[in-house]
Amino acid sequence: MAEQSFQLYDTTLRDGAQQEGMVLTVEDKLAVARELDGLGVGFIEGGWPGAVPRDTEFFRRARTELDLKHAVLAAFGATRRPGVPAPVDPQVRALLAAETPVVTLVAKSHTGHVRDALRTTLAENLSMIGGTVRHLVHAGRRVFVDAEHYFDGYQLNREYALAVVRTAAEAGAETVVLCDTNGGSLPDEVAAVVAETRALTGVQLGIHCHNDTGCAVANTMAAVDAGAVQAQGTAHGYGERCGNADLFTVIANLVLKRGREVVPLERLAGLAATGRAIAELTELPGSGAAPYIGESAFTHKAGLHASALRVDPDLYQHTRPALVGNAMRTLVSDMGGRSSIELKARELGYDVEAGSDEVARAATRVKELENAGYSFESADASFELLLREELTGAPRLHPFEVESWSVSVLGVLGVHGDEVRTEATVRLSVQGRAITATGHGNGPVNALDTALHAALDPCFPALSRLELVDYRVRVLSGETGSSADARVLVSYQAGDRRWGTVGVGPNTTAASWHALLDAVHYVLLDEPPGQAPDAPAHRVMASVQPIRP
Amino acid sequence: MAEQSFQLYDTTLRDGAQQEGMVLTVEDKLAVARELDGLGVGFIEGGWPGAVPRDTEFFRRARTELDLKHAVLAAFGATRRPGVPAPVDPQVRALLAAETPVVTLVAKSHTGHVRDALRTTLAENLSMIGGTVRHLVHAGRRVFVDAEHYFDGYQLNREYALAVVRTAAEAGAETVVLCDTNGGSLPDEVAAVVAETRALTGVQLGIHCHNDTGCAVANTMAAVDAGAVQAQGTAHGYGERCGNADLFTVIANLVLKRGREVVPLERLAGLAATGRAIAELTELPGSGAAPYIGESAFTHKAGLHASALRVDPDLYQHTRPALVGNAMRTLVSDMGGRSSIELKARELGYDVEAGSDEVARAATRVKELENAGYSFESADASFELLLREELTGAPRLHPFEVESWSVSVLGVLGVHGDEVRTEATVRLSVQGRAITATGHGNGPVNALDTALHAALDPCFPALSRLELVDYRVRVLSGETGSSADARVLVSYQAGDRRWGTVGVGPNTTAASWHALLDAVHYVLLDEPPGQAPDAPAHRVMASVQPIRP
Repeated sequence: MAEQSFQLYDTTLRDGAQQEGMVLTVEDKLAVARELDGLGVGFIEGGWPGAVPRDTEFFRRARTELDLKHAVLAAFGATRRPGVPAPVDPQVRALLAAETPVVTLVAKSHTGHVRDALRTTLAENLSMIGGTVRHLVHAGRRVFVDAEHYFDGYQLNREYALAVVRTAAEAGAETVVLCDTNGGSLPDEVAAVVAETRALTGVQLGIHCHNDTGCAVANTMAAVDAGAVQAQGTAHGYGERCGNADLFTVIANLVLKRGREVVPLERLAGLAATGRAIAELTELPGSGAAPYIGESAFTHKAGLHASALRVDPDLYQHTRPALVGNAMRTLVSDMGGRSSIELKARELGYDVEAGSDEVARAATRVKELENAGYSFESADASFELLLREELTGAPRLHPFEVESWSVSVLGVLGVHGDEVRTEATVRLSVQGRAITATGHGNGPVNALDTALHAALDPCFPALSRLELVDYRVRVLSGETGSSADARVLVSYQAGDRRWGTVGVGPNTTAASWHALLDAVHYVLLDEPPGQAPDAPAHRVMASVQPIRP
Repeated sequence: MAEQSFQLYDTTLRDGAQQEGMVLTVEDKLAVARELDGLGVGFIEGGWPGAVPRDTEFFRRARTELDLKHAVLAAFGATRRPGVPAPVDPQVRALLAAETPVVTLVAKSHTGHVRDALRTTLAENLSMIGGTVRHLVHAGRRVFVDAEHYFDGYQLNREYALAVVRTAAEAGAETVVLCDTNGGSLPDEVAAVVAETRALTGVQLGIHCHNDTGCAVANTMAAVDAGAVQAQGTAHGYGERCGNADLFTVIANLVLKRGREVVPLERLAGLAATGRAIAELTELPGSGAAPYIGESAFTHKAGLHASALRVDPDLYQHTRPALVGNAMRTLVSDMGGRSSIELKARELGYDVEAGSDEVARAATRVKELENAGYSFESADASFELLLREELTGAPRLHPFEVESWSVSVLGVLGVHGDEVRTEATVRLSVQGRAITATGHGNGPVNALDTALHAALDPCFPALSRLELVDYRVRVLSGETGSSADARVLVSYQAGDRRWGTVGVGPNTTAASWHALLDAVHYVLLDEPPGQAPDAPAHRVMASVQPIRP
């Protein structure tokens, strides 16, 4: 049953933006809001107008540039200052100037905070809440009140905390949101306080949790079970310290575990895609282990599971990944042994026999290479190259030969600061004919990638759609500390497919080079032999992409 | 009150090792076990002897190489196979051959799994459980039984799930551990099933949770509240899919939120250090947002909080960071504005006046640089250089001048595969005297770092203790997509202090070079002016570290 009345309230752009490492431009914020709207949340808190200049700008641009289909915008701010009437308080004026349908006011509900942080009296704080809410409601706003430090305040002085809830509601606040601001609560405490507050005040309540005990999602679920009708949270649980409640997990739990259709099922199927899009905008990837939408959320590695998975995937999954737009994956690893190699080969479309020699050989090679530092879990293209060799019994075809490669980076102090030049040269041959190509780039790997494209694209047109999109280096500490290697994982996009390759070696640039070569070989797997140049060629190409590592 | 009888059971080395990306050597496993022992857990599950060769080897070496002070080792395995008597089942024999005080058996408690995964009858499964437990107990082992898929099985066929618990206990199992294997449960369900099972069987129970609904910690807490006396979990919540319950969070919650001293307070103060040590061994850093021990767990960024924090840190922290060996940090960011710059400056030992011009200037510069892509949150050394300039009003001192720098990497196909050479040359001057130095390395940044050391260490002895320990590149997508820059963050160690610098620019190697220079300037901040060489010098140095990016 679709629940129209339940309030899903996203605060990624305000509380989530306090996450360490998050720096959002106004452009980013507008794009995140569009993604959240597409998911079907009801309220998007855009920021704190008047306090953060970027947020003021966000609300200004949102009026013309955001065309929300489903959500409404909320501006966040504090109640008026002590002793200043709401209509003349600059911050309250900034809230109205944001011109949002909803204003969310943070109000102190903990007596210690009223005295020590706000430095006013308990009575004046209540008057600030009532006066500010009335002023905003009178100006036509729907008002939510975030009762800050509510759970701690409730333990300390229950009557005062309840008075805050009552004052806000009597002044016209639509929902009073109980906040576990310091995040120290556990679900049983949250459930009890929400239920008691509801019973004692009759006010419509919401919940806002932080994850400092690792229970933000559970606390949110407990509050909703206890009668809260608004759940606040952030994309990927972004937020200060240990983060906020992960709204994505809360949504999936409410729909799939509680049967409360707070977003319709067809929108829920877009959850993983929304998560990926927002992670790209914030440049803070969500955890691979994130419930429901993490890339590992339905990924199986254990041998025990891999063999049972061949029987019935539902045996080892708590829900169907497709419901949230995710998919099952199998990892290739020595822990899974032959079963997982078999499963992965089938996933890739190879017709392998259970327990065949080919699978055993591939398992042995994977094990050897893993011991040498390789990891195929995110290097599916390198794995497929290996698998092909073992399944066909033939060594990998080499449509070209490498003679040498080099990169140089030169920085000279110029009038306008450093002048920097990065240049890579590769010497290859295709069908016996030598090709030398030079590529420029924004770094060694980018320049090598550019030079490879310059050398090979004319001979192998399929390579032109190969694009390097990500690059990671990991230093492997050797058993004794002396034989330390680097492992390079490179991610590619070709059309709308993404895949990865791996290179390992003592030199980071050389390991990168091998990962680049694997990518080229992978694209050429099913291509016809290349067209050799008519004469020995020397080509030069500038960077093919704006920036690469 | 210390709780001697509560069983803290760590399964990092078995269930945690199924985490995507985790590849542990036997050496790593032994080192992780030593860390867990130091923390004070009671039981360390070392692996699955007989099934995973590395685990068999682990138990063999553990007998002579592990000298556990507190914990005892557990070997994990399955009950005997259908139709095979326990004493001759090879896997059961491998469990005994591991020679651990404890054996933990996984047993099916879900009728669907008995039929479809195990392919045997419900009666034979009970006989397998009873027979295997009795055989192991007879051989002198303490036996724990992990009842797999217990919560799902209990919903499907309660009587059978209960029969599994009773059978295991009657055969001599000390604790029966209820497992939420697929991780789909919520705390209220877990609490109810644990309480009912306890009431109906009287058996001593444990809990083993996965995080597929984001509730693994809350589920574990709920089970303990409902009477479970064993909590299983993993370091950092490592584990397949969404991970296991994070044992670190569970321990801190039990001690600090429930007053159950499952580890003594002096060991709890080592929690963050244990977390860091294990993350280094697994090379899978725990989340910065991890409750209690994450580096962001007590980190404040918001301006609202930063100004309140000056009044009383406890207002915005749910517990004292020192209790878990962590510390409060303040982030420098435009969101926090002057308050957080002021706090950070004081944290660094600078005597700044509230609201002074210097602080305002520093805040403005931080804002400008952040707009250009800089981030000072983990580049505290670069921030301190900037702060010094603004506080003293004088531009940064340059104890040396840079004329040019270059790096080249050359790979040639040799008899034994690629032969690779990386070489960097820097041209500097100290007090007017030119120095050229060349460094070799395992990659461009390493070679530049080596060359800098070669050039400057003889002039500035303080630099010799500067060690590059980590390196990260992030591609910043520009507002319009055309002006994309790279941001490089470099981490250093000098003695036992760690700090970071930042470089931004369109070229990754150039951005790295600037971060390297900031590090050198930072170390030389309070050093006497350098000793110029007697004559123009040219020095060559091989890599100073085994491997660097």
